[in-house]
Amino acid sequence: MNVDGVPHRTIWLAEDGWSVEIIDQTKLPHRFETLRLTSLDQAAEAIRSMQVRGAPLIGATAAYGIALAMAEDAGDAALKAAYDSLLATRPTAVNLRWALDDLYDLLQPLGANARAAAAYLRAAEICEEDVALCRAIGDRGLPLIEAIAARKGGAPVNVLTHCNAGWLATVDWGTATAPIYLAHDKGIAVKVWVDETRPRNQGASLTAWELTQHGVPHAIVADNVGGHLMQQGLVDLCIVGTDRTTRRGDVCNKIGTYLKALAARDNGVPFYVALPGPTVDWTLEDGRDVPIEERDAREVTHVTGRNEAGELATVEISNPGSPAANYAFDVTPARLVTGLITERGVCEASAEGLAGLYPERAGRAEGQGSLS
Amino acid sequence: MNVDGVPHRTIWLAEDGWSVEIIDQTKLPHRFETLRLTSLDQAAEAIRSMQVRGAPLIGATAAYGIALAMAEDAGDAALKAAYDSLLATRPTAVNLRWALDDLYDLLQPLGANARAAAAYLRAAEICEEDVALCRAIGDRGLPLIEAIAARKGGAPVNVLTHCNAGWLATVDWGTATAPIYLAHDKGIAVKVWVDETRPRNQGASLTAWELTQHGVPHAIVADNVGGHLMQQGLVDLCIVGTDRTTRRGDVCNKIGTYLKALAARDNGVPFYVALPGPTVDWTLEDGRDVPIEERDAREVTHVTGRNEAGELATVEISNPGSPAANYAFDVTPARLVTGLITERGVCEASAEGLAGLYPERAGRAEGQGSLS
Repeated sequence: MNVDGVPHRTIWLAEDGWSVEIIDQTKLPHRFETLRLTSLDQAAEAIRSMQVRGAPLIGATAAYGIALAMAEDAGDAALKAAYDSLLATRPTAVNLRWALDDLYDLLQPLGANARAAAAYLRAAEICEEDVALCRAIGDRGLPLIEAIAARKGGAPVNVLTHCNAGWLATVDWGTATAPIYLAHDKGIAVKVWVDETRPRNQGASLTAWELTQHGVPHAIVADNVGGHLMQQGLVDLCIVGTDRTTRRGDVCNKIGTYLKALAARDNGVPFYVALPGPTVDWTLEDGRDVPIEERDAREVTHVTGRNEAGELATVEISNPGSPAANYAFDVTPARLVTGLITERGVCEASAEGLAGLYPERAGRAEGQGSLS
Repeated sequence: MNVDGVPHRTIWLAEDGWSVEIIDQTKLPHRFETLRLTSLDQAAEAIRSMQVRGAPLIGATAAYGIALAMAEDAGDAALKAAYDSLLATRPTAVNLRWALDDLYDLLQPLGANARAAAAYLRAAEICEEDVALCRAIGDRGLPLIEAIAARKGGAPVNVLTHCNAGWLATVDWGTATAPIYLAHDKGIAVKVWVDETRPRNQGASLTAWELTQHGVPHAIVADNVGGHLMQQGLVDLCIVGTDRTTRRGDVCNKIGTYLKALAARDNGVPFYVALPGPTVDWTLEDGRDVPIEERDAREVTHVTGRNEAGELATVEISNPGSPAANYAFDVTPARLVTGLITERGVCEASAEGLAGLYPERAGRAEGQGSLS
């Protein structure tokens, strides 16, 4: 999507045809900086340090990391070392392992002199596939916004979203944001309520940055506010992303999603979840079986932002010495979800709904999906 | 309640018998400092700058402000000037006007030489009345905690609260916290989940500070977390305060309260609201008619905390330039409230419930209650 009026992706091949450029997301929203990756180690560090984040983007970066490694040394040992090094960067990201396995299985049978070119080609394909997946989610979700826009006769369609399921987490378009960007680009008036998404503030920092850069009207709200907005009729539609969805449509997503789904139900506001089919975990039925990550309490007690001098600074915002609990995700039961927006279409959040779109997957249970 | 092991109130007469001491709440939770007020102007400034906050405490401070004024000049003009000066400090706080009217009506008929003594006496009474009101709320709410404690056989009773309805907002005990302090002091094991309460973080700063000082086990959580905690069976009881309750039991309280009430209902967790009878607005039926204050967006986009050097510093945490909306309160419909804990007893959140406890008020509608 646009940054300062110029279309960008989160990762792309540099003009030299072999090095790889990324947006350094650790600097957002305060500075827009791109980085050039010229080695396996730099690619691994970009993932580890969260200069790139979001499961799809991590997978794409890992694929290019293999390509960078092969450009330097395409021997068997180097291939295995690159695989191991990249896999160790973020152990829970399912797309990471998927991309690495994909590249390894492709390259291993090839002669060393063919590996680099094949790796670059496949990395580019992985990026294009992700863009197409997100774009398709956008195409499938767009009619939901169009229908509301038609009803409102030109008044902005108010969409509430939580966390960052935006293009910064993917290669382009994002998941929850894809229908919003398509609607905006089509000239439909939209306004996005951006939950700030404590404790890591991905909404207020990343989603708000994305929307600003692409020119989409929005307002940041504290996570406490969504219920009031819905009571007041100020939300037409909720669209959120998901880290893992069970085969019956229970949705694991950033902590706080469940509260917004409750408010949507209580106020008759449609609540949609945008997801690529690969994030459905066909092995799980009940969302309550999804393990919920507990993170460092310091994410709750301290925040980092820009001080008056324009420098990044960290301040302690809570009572010193008070403990804090930091659950990173929650599970929204399928009964609260109006529908799932996938690349194959919109379906009911139910075993039947998902099986209808993914008949080839619903029949067999296999390991897929992991919190990222 | 205790500060560093020593019982404190939020306001008290100094040992010299005429000046007034307060806790400077603008320094909390980072520093505990008391201030001595020796003039009307200092009392007014303490209210204006939020060194004292919370409707009951503002009322008590205003009463002592009149007393300080009378100690210097007890003439008619000085009394009127003191009244006007204090009333202008926080125009929406209902207890402020109530306390000032009370003092004015008491003092105006008296001779100038009797006014100072009468004002000090009445200010002290106002403080004692508030302490008794909160203590009675505690006594009425304590059996709710005791019943859960009996059922849990010694395991801690997990209470979730939102914002600061604690002793710092009153003279002592607080409202929502009063049953908790009484339970703790009685030796009942309690653990309090403290919603941080964005954007102003009164939970993470003030409530957590209170509980730490009094030795009550607790953990701060982001406002997003309460629903997950309730899904996991980690909350036995919610108790919150209220700024204004309608005659049928709709509850206006800090933004985000409604979301927790929804989660409580969805998970079968009792959701109680603690309130002094005077905060019922008998003129209002429907909570949707309560005007909701919109505050400065900067409260959302910037936070103040302690930096690594130990100094208070403000940082911008959201995307620079993104607008933010800052609704300060929301309304929880009576249907989501398990009961109201008042100084006269616990009642259903309904017109019948409130009329049963306040028959002398329910019959007539009069102006009472305002957001503070």
